[in-house]
Amino acid sequence: MNKLIIPFFLLIIGCVNTSNENKTAFPFTLPEEMPERELSSAVKRLYTDYSSVHPQENELFSQFKYTELKGFDYNNHDGTITRRDPSKVIYENGKYYVWYTYRNTSLPPQGAKKCNDTIPSSDWDLAEIWYATSTDGFTWEEQGVAIKRPAKPNIGWRSVTTADILVWEGKYYLYYQGFMEASGTRGDDCPVTASWADSPDGPWTPVNEIIIPNGKNGEWDMYSIHDPYPLVYNDKIYLYYKSDFNGKEKKVRMQGLAVADNPLGPFEKHPLNPVISSGHETSLFQFKSGIAALVYKDGVEHNTIQYAADGVNFEIASITELMPYAAAPYIPDAFTNTKDGRGITWGMAHFINVSGWSRMNSMLVRFDCDLSQDIHDDEMKEHRVNHSPDVYFKQGLSKKQRERIFR
Amino acid sequence: MNKLIIPFFLLIIGCVNTSNENKTAFPFTLPEEMPERELSSAVKRLYTDYSSVHPQENELFSQFKYTELKGFDYNNHDGTITRRDPSKVIYENGKYYVWYTYRNTSLPPQGAKKCNDTIPSSDWDLAEIWYATSTDGFTWEEQGVAIKRPAKPNIGWRSVTTADILVWEGKYYLYYQGFMEASGTRGDDCPVTASWADSPDGPWTPVNEIIIPNGKNGEWDMYSIHDPYPLVYNDKIYLYYKSDFNGKEKKVRMQGLAVADNPLGPFEKHPLNPVISSGHETSLFQFKSGIAALVYKDGVEHNTIQYAADGVNFEIASITELMPYAAAPYIPDAFTNTKDGRGITWGMAHFINVSGWSRMNSMLVRFDCDLSQDIHDDEMKEHRVNHSPDVYFKQGLSKKQRERIFR
Repeated sequence: MNKLIIPFFLLIIGCVNTSNENKTAFPFTLPEEMPERELSSAVKRLYTDYSSVHPQENELFSQFKYTELKGFDYNNHDGTITRRDPSKVIYENGKYYVWYTYRNTSLPPQGAKKCNDTIPSSDWDLAEIWYATSTDGFTWEEQGVAIKRPAKPNIGWRSVTTADILVWEGKYYLYYQGFMEASGTRGDDCPVTASWADSPDGPWTPVNEIIIPNGKNGEWDMYSIHDPYPLVYNDKIYLYYKSDFNGKEKKVRMQGLAVADNPLGPFEKHPLNPVISSGHETSLFQFKSGIAALVYKDGVEHNTIQYAADGVNFEIASITELMPYAAAPYIPDAFTNTKDGRGITWGMAHFINVSGWSRMNSMLVRFDCDLSQDIHDDEMKEHRVNHSPDVYFKQGLSKKQRERIFR
Repeated sequence: MNKLIIPFFLLIIGCVNTSNENKTAFPFTLPEEMPERELSSAVKRLYTDYSSVHPQENELFSQFKYTELKGFDYNNHDGTITRRDPSKVIYENGKYYVWYTYRNTSLPPQGAKKCNDTIPSSDWDLAEIWYATSTDGFTWEEQGVAIKRPAKPNIGWRSVTTADILVWEGKYYLYYQGFMEASGTRGDDCPVTASWADSPDGPWTPVNEIIIPNGKNGEWDMYSIHDPYPLVYNDKIYLYYKSDFNGKEKKVRMQGLAVADNPLGPFEKHPLNPVISSGHETSLFQFKSGIAALVYKDGVEHNTIQYAADGVNFEIASITELMPYAAAPYIPDAFTNTKDGRGITWGMAHFINVSGWSRMNSMLVRFDCDLSQDIHDDEMKEHRVNHSPDVYFKQGLSKKQRERIFR
């Protein structure tokens, strides 16, 4: 037996140069494919972990540009009006549609202890789902309410928020968080429910059922199912969602997947959940034969764009910065069951807390990017954002930090 | 033979659960160690690729805070005075020392075609190495020139820039770029030379030799050896440097390592060079038994902090944002040959191009962070930088981009 085994191991050793014995220095012209020489870990990763050795040639790398929207009034951002958590943008009837969380209350949010039937606890308490349309994606006409809060004790009686849209066999489905207590009572607890309509302009019929239920006691998603985000993929509805878990002290946010054959379910949660370890809101799109995700704000792998060839096992595709929060792109092929997702060039996002904590409110914003196979925008592919010094100085030392340093 | 081989393969198959058959959902309490269940790729990476599942418990994750320095005059930032590319900060004689590239010319940089003996081509042309001292790291006293430009044709006659400091057996060594043509003539070409002194206040004796030579024709570092950055590690001098290569169209910047037993060499370039695939200036420090690097601005793995247990094979330790450029930390154990590097809490960096291209100049700035085993600063460990909307809107669409979108 040894006669056969030993040559096998010798063969392996022969193929791997472990002696740092490159006979020549690394070449001036960067090879586009992995060269046959021993490489440092960092240079090797360029070839094994990314689609190109140049960020600007990586279809899943982009900078993000931001434009203020026309058509929305915020009462001088005094905290009484908020618009946040936009849905994906869809194009129907010659115009773009977006749905979002809309709050219009007499006072800004006052926290869970001071809230009541008309005073909101959080920025998304006592909210409805409103919608707006636009012919260019920059100037919007607010169309009013799409989903009202139902009467108590129906799902969402306290607040309906953070909607997203599915178009399926000629019908429209809005999935959203249905609060049955004020956000902040324990945490930010809710399941997901849905409404459907024959037109994007409604009227919307609530299903009055929980569509994505919270996990059982002790499971990662036992308290919150946030940011339901449906895409049509692999002939099914892939609905991604976020949950907060691990308690308050070291709260983590991850994203899971629930799959269904029909819009109203049943949705089966994926056994490998959570499938995205970092980030905050759900922001995904079909790309080539897989699914891409914008991962930002929270967790170990924030500031990345990730890709899962199977929609489940996400790898880092690029590292970027100044990403849009609550990003909700316009995805032309979101519901076409595409096998070659073309990617995205723009969408909606939000800025939270634009007036400070005492006048808490959020606003919608447009972002543009080049995460598309169909355009190539050099400016979007610049390696870095150039900030003026004041942006850095704004990130100054706190009083506590200065005391630590000067002690 | 088959009798022995087959059970071996069965054993492998038995150990790897490939059927997505988790019998329970992921737990609400995030396990600190990798749990025995099948995991998605993203969640698995939390345990295999990072020192903690929580960014805030990762010693090599930090945000960065910025403070304007007192004590430096810039002629109202009219482009005639620049200070950039600080050295590591050292502490001697009861005060901190920093060296930097200093330019004081009658006109701002005019490009390689318009430059002459007194008009600079680039921001770092016709420069000298100056130094300053401080008792607190915030208010600095400029002490004047450390390294003048030598007479032509000595190394550095056109400009001496981008110095860094080594303390070795009671002597002080400054390594710096020695230009023998105006930057921009072909590219930004220079080798590295050095000067030494018995005191950080000088006088400095130039060695008048090339210490780190450019590579041979066709090698990655044939044109530039930038940002020489010496540390004492493994009983030797580990000098990291940067080179630009691959031509102008798709220029890349990577970092290499040269090792010597003595400050004036000979330095042997590492056979695995380049050892860092991304970033811009060199910014490294001893950490535990290895070397950590700040990697920013350019390349696939910008916005990361990396770690090499052997000083050569760097892995991503964390992903962050708004990093200091040309970061040059105060490293208390930079020259102690430590086997347990304690890390860094502050240093110097620069902002380039603070007045626009026509009045090009750069300024020094202080950064603070928590990349230290010896402090834990909650504010430095926040997952994200909160910017006001104007920071995003500043990154707006260009005219060219608006024309593409509205065409």
